[in-house]
Amino acid sequence: MKAEEVPNPAVYRLSFYLRQLELFDHIGRHTISSKQLGEALGYTDAQVRKDLAYFGQFGHPGIGYRVDELISRLKKILGTDKIWNVLLVGAGNLGRALMTYRGFLRKGFKLAAVFDADPAKIGREFGELKIRPMEELAAAVSQLHIRMAMLTVPQDAAQTVADKLVAAGIRGILNFAAVSLNTPDDIFVQSVDLALQLEQLSFRMSMPPTGNPPAVG
Amino acid sequence: MKAEEVPNPAVYRLSFYLRQLELFDHIGRHTISSKQLGEALGYTDAQVRKDLAYFGQFGHPGIGYRVDELISRLKKILGTDKIWNVLLVGAGNLGRALMTYRGFLRKGFKLAAVFDADPAKIGREFGELKIRPMEELAAAVSQLHIRMAMLTVPQDAAQTVADKLVAAGIRGILNFAAVSLNTPDDIFVQSVDLALQLEQLSFRMSMPPTGNPPAVG
Repeated sequence: MKAEEVPNPAVYRLSFYLRQLELFDHIGRHTISSKQLGEALGYTDAQVRKDLAYFGQFGHPGIGYRVDELISRLKKILGTDKIWNVLLVGAGNLGRALMTYRGFLRKGFKLAAVFDADPAKIGREFGELKIRPMEELAAAVSQLHIRMAMLTVPQDAAQTVADKLVAAGIRGILNFAAVSLNTPDDIFVQSVDLALQLEQLSFRMSMPPTGNPPAVG
Repeated sequence: MKAEEVPNPAVYRLSFYLRQLELFDHIGRHTISSKQLGEALGYTDAQVRKDLAYFGQFGHPGIGYRVDELISRLKKILGTDKIWNVLLVGAGNLGRALMTYRGFLRKGFKLAAVFDADPAKIGREFGELKIRPMEELAAAVSQLHIRMAMLTVPQDAAQTVADKLVAAGIRGILNFAAVSLNTPDDIFVQSVDLALQLEQLSFRMSMPPTGNPPAVG
């Protein structure tokens, strides 16, 4: 199985399985069946088995899955069995919000360095983080072994900064700018489009609860 | 076709089609084939036709799709052919970032009211928006005809606030708190888990580019 052969939605489901298993672990459950895991998330047991089968054999006949074992295997598959150092470029409102977001470290992502092009912001401190000038980017990537970046710069600066990230050795970019990035094939870009999330809601809220969709012609 | 029968990934693809069509429109293209639309996004033409077929007949024999026509139909399907008034609860770092995020209005979402429980924040103004006390929530929902909310409160307050939103008449919640919400079946909740987005990246970056997945057992 090659990385690119695992469909995106299946990877999301792995994350959801992991979160659900951590809940089960938290309440003291030691084993779980694919049916029980699926039911907790609204998936069929066939879906659960198929998703996990991408990565090998996990269950134990007559027992199901061992919760702690499946958690550690899923973390290994998702790459979150270790801490990733992550950098952030763009210390505007959104960047500062992400600097104080506590959900990252719990999941294995440590914000290790923050950069901005605005001299007025450089040197400002947020907890342990100090905003650094763009000129220090390449050295920090190398010194802190950073491979992952969050991009929260204005739309018209996004491509230029992405080019600098790639040149510095970054291999994965979480892109918050509402623009598509041109990057080499071996660079992974995950786009966060907040308006798109609202669009998903408006779709669900616009469809009638039963029957036909709204007339569109 | 019932709303709940359209799989989530298909709805995301509708959003991507719409964005791509708007790009085509911007550069002056009048017609497009499902093959061309798919190629621009990395989908097969069969995928494009299947996704659109959920909602009726769109193409014209020998012509393909008319770009402007497909844009307006997709907007109608996605519910973004009109402006949605949206409220926000929680004017912390993330909430303030969203208050200044310009991508929403372009896509049909107008942030119409902002609420916080902290007396120190109430009355502060951001552009046209003034942070209001929670006590004014229900009246504002009614007066401004708001059906959609963004929830950016701390994790331990999220459920309580969600209950208030539902009681006030909100039908869709974009949830930024890293916690699952219990809501009635007719309330739509879209969760934004930023660590999960990083997890998708770490998965892709952890898998070898070709060959077998990392050994997990």
